[in-house]
Amino acid sequence: MAHERSHDLDVGHTQAHGPSHDPELPAPADSFDHHAQVQATFDLYRRAALSSNQRRRADFYALPKRHRDLLPDYSALLREVDEKLQVNAELVQRMIEANPFPPPEDAALDAPAPTDADHERLRSTLRQCVRDWSETGENERNTAYRPILDSLASSFSHLSPSEKAETRVLVPGAGLGRLAWEIVRAGFSCQANEFSLHMLIASSFILNNCTTPDEFTLHPYLHSFSNIRSREDLLAPCLIPDVAPSDIAGGEAEFSFAAGDFLEVYGDSPGSWDVCVTCFFLDTARNVVQYLETIHGLLKPTGMWINLGPTLWHFEADRDSSSLELPLEDVKTLARKVGFELWDEREIKTCYTTNPLSMLRHEYTAAFWTARKV
Amino acid sequence: MAHERSHDLDVGHTQAHGPSHDPELPAPADSFDHHAQVQATFDLYRRAALSSNQRRRADFYALPKRHRDLLPDYSALLREVDEKLQVNAELVQRMIEANPFPPPEDAALDAPAPTDADHERLRSTLRQCVRDWSETGENERNTAYRPILDSLASSFSHLSPSEKAETRVLVPGAGLGRLAWEIVRAGFSCQANEFSLHMLIASSFILNNCTTPDEFTLHPYLHSFSNIRSREDLLAPCLIPDVAPSDIAGGEAEFSFAAGDFLEVYGDSPGSWDVCVTCFFLDTARNVVQYLETIHGLLKPTGMWINLGPTLWHFEADRDSSSLELPLEDVKTLARKVGFELWDEREIKTCYTTNPLSMLRHEYTAAFWTARKV
Repeated sequence: MAHERSHDLDVGHTQAHGPSHDPELPAPADSFDHHAQVQATFDLYRRAALSSNQRRRADFYALPKRHRDLLPDYSALLREVDEKLQVNAELVQRMIEANPFPPPEDAALDAPAPTDADHERLRSTLRQCVRDWSETGENERNTAYRPILDSLASSFSHLSPSEKAETRVLVPGAGLGRLAWEIVRAGFSCQANEFSLHMLIASSFILNNCTTPDEFTLHPYLHSFSNIRSREDLLAPCLIPDVAPSDIAGGEAEFSFAAGDFLEVYGDSPGSWDVCVTCFFLDTARNVVQYLETIHGLLKPTGMWINLGPTLWHFEADRDSSSLELPLEDVKTLARKVGFELWDEREIKTCYTTNPLSMLRHEYTAAFWTARKV
Repeated sequence: MAHERSHDLDVGHTQAHGPSHDPELPAPADSFDHHAQVQATFDLYRRAALSSNQRRRADFYALPKRHRDLLPDYSALLREVDEKLQVNAELVQRMIEANPFPPPEDAALDAPAPTDADHERLRSTLRQCVRDWSETGENERNTAYRPILDSLASSFSHLSPSEKAETRVLVPGAGLGRLAWEIVRAGFSCQANEFSLHMLIASSFILNNCTTPDEFTLHPYLHSFSNIRSREDLLAPCLIPDVAPSDIAGGEAEFSFAAGDFLEVYGDSPGSWDVCVTCFFLDTARNVVQYLETIHGLLKPTGMWINLGPTLWHFEADRDSSSLELPLEDVKTLARKVGFELWDEREIKTCYTTNPLSMLRHEYTAAFWTARKV
């Protein structure tokens, strides 16, 4: 199979094969329908978001007058939320206008309407923009990406720049591509692989359409009023991207983005990769044995695997999908049986698209290891 | 309205009025149906839990043989999980046999089948057993209940034992009653109020049917295999209760449990309470103004209100329910307008029915304050 490659700014988003869809959903029967449904989700962001806020307004006006009188500034807050939602909607609109995977025109007519889950996937994509491409996300990137980048840097410190550029790193589950981008910035050639069409649309937009730092404003915390200290925290803006994505242009390293299901794209791959980096990825498996075999298969002899992530098995609660959920220790035992030698095993505390201002914090103790194909 | 009172072991669970139901659901049209549905959820715990584990087994046997061969101990793990689920089912069975709110016999026939949400509510009740009545829960109790108990103790340190026993403390959203029990143990009279029938069944069982420490074994972490380090952590047992609930018998303080919706039970209450303690409760409100007015109304002049909790608004995502969601600072401003003077305002980091062995931790920065009715 051919993956589109490109050297600099124009990171090609090629749909490798198989339908591109959200990792939390089984493959839709008709991928055109899925493309149309995702497109509709982006198109309807503005309406869905404003409608949620309108629900708050309606509930407020249904209160007894003496209750409303005790909350004289609440309507003004809702108006401000509306305004900021419009700012978000501008960014979402720009993303969908640059959609590299538009559905055929007639598909939109038959596409199922976006579900609550679709809308939540888009909101999650916006949170991912904060994680990967804002200053606010720096702490998460420092805890989750830095150990991986350090491990790569120290393992290949003996290479010349052109040897580094010939070293091929694969990042499945690449999300919005920041980790892959950092790997390229560190001098390696890197292919990002992603399955979710929401993520692919957003990553293509940031990598190919954003040219200067702080170009867009996003208000990522407007979608839930829970566990928020103050109005300022609720309305807080976030500038995107924190760097110019083109900052990696000019080197010899190649950067590509392959759309599609990891197993389908790399399942029968000859051992042609020097490194595979899995970051918050293993637990997206329905069958983690197959993931580990695929990682083993795609690596060159003595190839390197770096892993960081939790074991939040994505399909555990999905009755329509087969799922295998192992305790962490069993995953490691399995990895050794599949043919890896593990070292530098550690635990790393980190978050995932957290709101640092929130009064509720979800903290992962992620497992980290480096491994060698034996 | 009359609330049943009792002096010691036999903590009466009276359904005050209105249907008793889960705070996450709007009131069912027919409370008998609801009672029957909850009874069915307890009755079916064994089958539902074993069936989830059977899903894992079926998915495992559907794997290619070479994958199964790489996981030689997995079937044995599933067998162990089955055994421990049976241990849990024994406890659940004991609880429902002692149900103080049995549905009429013919209601069971027409009751809707338990939903996934019903099963999750029961699992959440089991986690609550760990929080309130096990050694494992001690850390949560120390962070969430201790500041409240300390505040009570220092505010009423000048009282004689019999004056303390005449001091009436109300704890709405009392869950499984440990905080209320600790308040009685500290010498105050206390009424716990709870809405959820799941909680009422479990709390009645623990308070009235458990006589010695470590009487029952529960394996609380079997229901999800995610974010678990090892088989030992997954299978870990927890002994319940950590104390003999009867340890508070013999004093002058009264302990009672009132079942029903907080607003319905106390909405037109004359100011007859010395203290109201809200712990992880305010955010269960559809209309927090009404909660604050009700707390204000039920207190005697200069009565005390102690609050600790997040603002995880329970009805925010419920489209069928009216909901008002305020940032924390707005809740405090509102409390002052309703007629409270706040002091000792702090933030307290705590968890809620967390699995301390899990690699994923949800940590609340809960708001704490003490207030006086002015």
